[in-house]
Amino acid sequence: MTAFPKRIALLGSTGSIGRQTLDVVRQFPEHFRVVSLAARSNITLLAQQVAEFHPDIVACSAETPEQQQAARAALPHVVLGPQGLTTAATHPDVDIVVAATSGLMALEATLAAIEAGKIIAVANKETLVMAGHLVTTAARRKGIQIFPIDSEHSAIWQCLKGEENAEVRTLILTASGGPFRNTPLEQMRTVTVEQALAHPTWRMGPKITIDSATLMNKGLEVIEARWLFDIPQERIQVVVHPESIIHSMVEFIDGSIKMQASLPSMHLPIMNALAYPHRLQAANSSLIRDLHWADVARLNFEALDVTRFPCFRLALEAAQRGGTYPAVLVGADEEAVDLFLHGKIKLLEIATLIETVLDRHTSSTQPTVAEIIDASMWARRATQEVYRTI
Amino acid sequence: MTAFPKRIALLGSTGSIGRQTLDVVRQFPEHFRVVSLAARSNITLLAQQVAEFHPDIVACSAETPEQQQAARAALPHVVLGPQGLTTAATHPDVDIVVAATSGLMALEATLAAIEAGKIIAVANKETLVMAGHLVTTAARRKGIQIFPIDSEHSAIWQCLKGEENAEVRTLILTASGGPFRNTPLEQMRTVTVEQALAHPTWRMGPKITIDSATLMNKGLEVIEARWLFDIPQERIQVVVHPESIIHSMVEFIDGSIKMQASLPSMHLPIMNALAYPHRLQAANSSLIRDLHWADVARLNFEALDVTRFPCFRLALEAAQRGGTYPAVLVGADEEAVDLFLHGKIKLLEIATLIETVLDRHTSSTQPTVAEIIDASMWARRATQEVYRTI
Repeated sequence: MTAFPKRIALLGSTGSIGRQTLDVVRQFPEHFRVVSLAARSNITLLAQQVAEFHPDIVACSAETPEQQQAARAALPHVVLGPQGLTTAATHPDVDIVVAATSGLMALEATLAAIEAGKIIAVANKETLVMAGHLVTTAARRKGIQIFPIDSEHSAIWQCLKGEENAEVRTLILTASGGPFRNTPLEQMRTVTVEQALAHPTWRMGPKITIDSATLMNKGLEVIEARWLFDIPQERIQVVVHPESIIHSMVEFIDGSIKMQASLPSMHLPIMNALAYPHRLQAANSSLIRDLHWADVARLNFEALDVTRFPCFRLALEAAQRGGTYPAVLVGADEEAVDLFLHGKIKLLEIATLIETVLDRHTSSTQPTVAEIIDASMWARRATQEVYRTI
Repeated sequence: MTAFPKRIALLGSTGSIGRQTLDVVRQFPEHFRVVSLAARSNITLLAQQVAEFHPDIVACSAETPEQQQAARAALPHVVLGPQGLTTAATHPDVDIVVAATSGLMALEATLAAIEAGKIIAVANKETLVMAGHLVTTAARRKGIQIFPIDSEHSAIWQCLKGEENAEVRTLILTASGGPFRNTPLEQMRTVTVEQALAHPTWRMGPKITIDSATLMNKGLEVIEARWLFDIPQERIQVVVHPESIIHSMVEFIDGSIKMQASLPSMHLPIMNALAYPHRLQAANSSLIRDLHWADVARLNFEALDVTRFPCFRLALEAAQRGGTYPAVLVGADEEAVDLFLHGKIKLLEIATLIETVLDRHTSSTQPTVAEIIDASMWARRATQEVYRTI
């Protein structure tokens, strides 16, 4: 636990979670100070954020010479290249690292921050899905807490407050079911990119929106939950709840179920992670809209029809196999979703490609960071190869 | 906090909550020991319970000479008369007192148990509604915790676990709405006793079933919540939730809402109070049936239409006036419900009688136990007088 003001390293400040994290900092200037900002390539926005929040460290991975030149011009003291993330995360003044970059970009920085004794707020599925064993082992050794920034895991985390892990019977993740919740398998064969991008309750980037349509996203969340809460995968369930009001639940050994609810909002999980163990006065503010139960009127629950969502099954199977299989799952999914978004494969072929790539993979046990990254890169290439043969 | 086995004084062992408390003890013999059993007049059942649980103290209030004789014959070492409750509650071996008698019968015993340093599990609305200031002041002075045995308050208590009271924005009690949830006011004027006794989700005694039909019960629960959780009455809300699956909710200052759910069960709140801060392995047992979300399918929420439930409004007003008004409310309600159950008045006249009696009352401030009991007795007589004039 750290007292206010908490000092934040924000990795991925120009992405969706990064920008919403800065909304929270802006709303509670007495509670938070931004020590570091790190972004990949949106130098214009990064420079605006630097002008507003005055961080001590600014990092930009700036992968091309043009980006590097532009970053140097806009930000005189910028730290360039991938090591910038680690510099940003391990600065001695940092209390909490918000890991909101995409993919595995922040894995090394996250592990370095754990070694440096920082609290980690993970807003990035890949880190835990692919390297959960590395991150949680390091965190346990250093006595570091990993906080979730994701509505489902934040809900479970809140329901577990004051409870004992040994008294948990089941974690129950809710799933909106996405745009194809009620679409028969036959029709799912022919859905368009536009249909797949029309998520009923959440507005997100295209990759995660497709992962929500295929329920891959929910499979990845099961794996994340397994690492975050140290509950065996077979005691993690998913129930479809189309309204996305109840963000997840915990069932205890006595049969009592606790659940957390709000209107869909990413600001709330961000606030929870930043302010933990406290809560910020944000109800009925510009950040959090009030939930009126009489207006909500009705909450629905349905069983998940796994037969129509093979990606969900593949995620659970990859996690059960362990090793580098989850890294292959994520790499193959990134490539396959990209192919779908470019109109090159059909929605259900995402699962076909991933399954074929998983079957071709030979995993190492207890993989290192390098082996995880290699497996993920291999999976991307293998997906392209398989695509060319279908 | 007390380690297992916890040693229990059960006041009101032959009533519904008393019998269900013994179900829990029977299921977990290694966790609990019954030190005292106290009942009013069901000597046959009390004797069976004594034979099964071997308490050190048996008390029976046995109000008539015949009952006293029968009690002495069946139970050689029985403590007779009202002081038996205090003897049962304050025995040196007792860790936790379950106050499950009806009315104010156990008030003196409860206060004596607090002075003796016992944890109190309150399954009796009247104690807190009428004497909340006395009980909570005494408990605070002695550093004693009051645990709720009621599904709504147990839900709130579970949602508050690990949370700070200063971070609570609103307590939201759920109400099934009772049998007249959708009945227009005009039809409510003519409902029969049978219709009023047909509660849609809970099976309870006739008095509390009528209080549920008039929503008086929910008003009393608001008052209880105010004392149990030290939250001002204006921050306690009620929402109608016909399925009685979500037992209540807490909204925090950040806009996050936590709620507790289970199939309707009194065993669960009893287990929670007895085992706190632990939970017992009871899911999917004979005590607790599993809740399957896909079977639940749908949860509904509606605003409470206060205009059709004047008893609810009267309860809140009596609590706001304070002093002996809540005692008058309870006394007048007991008498008025009795008149309704005997077919002497109509359902909506329950509120008319109570309102008239409240208006005639002159309250003392910070009343003593004696003044509370006097006010309640006065209210019963006054209700009969008002009844004879209508």
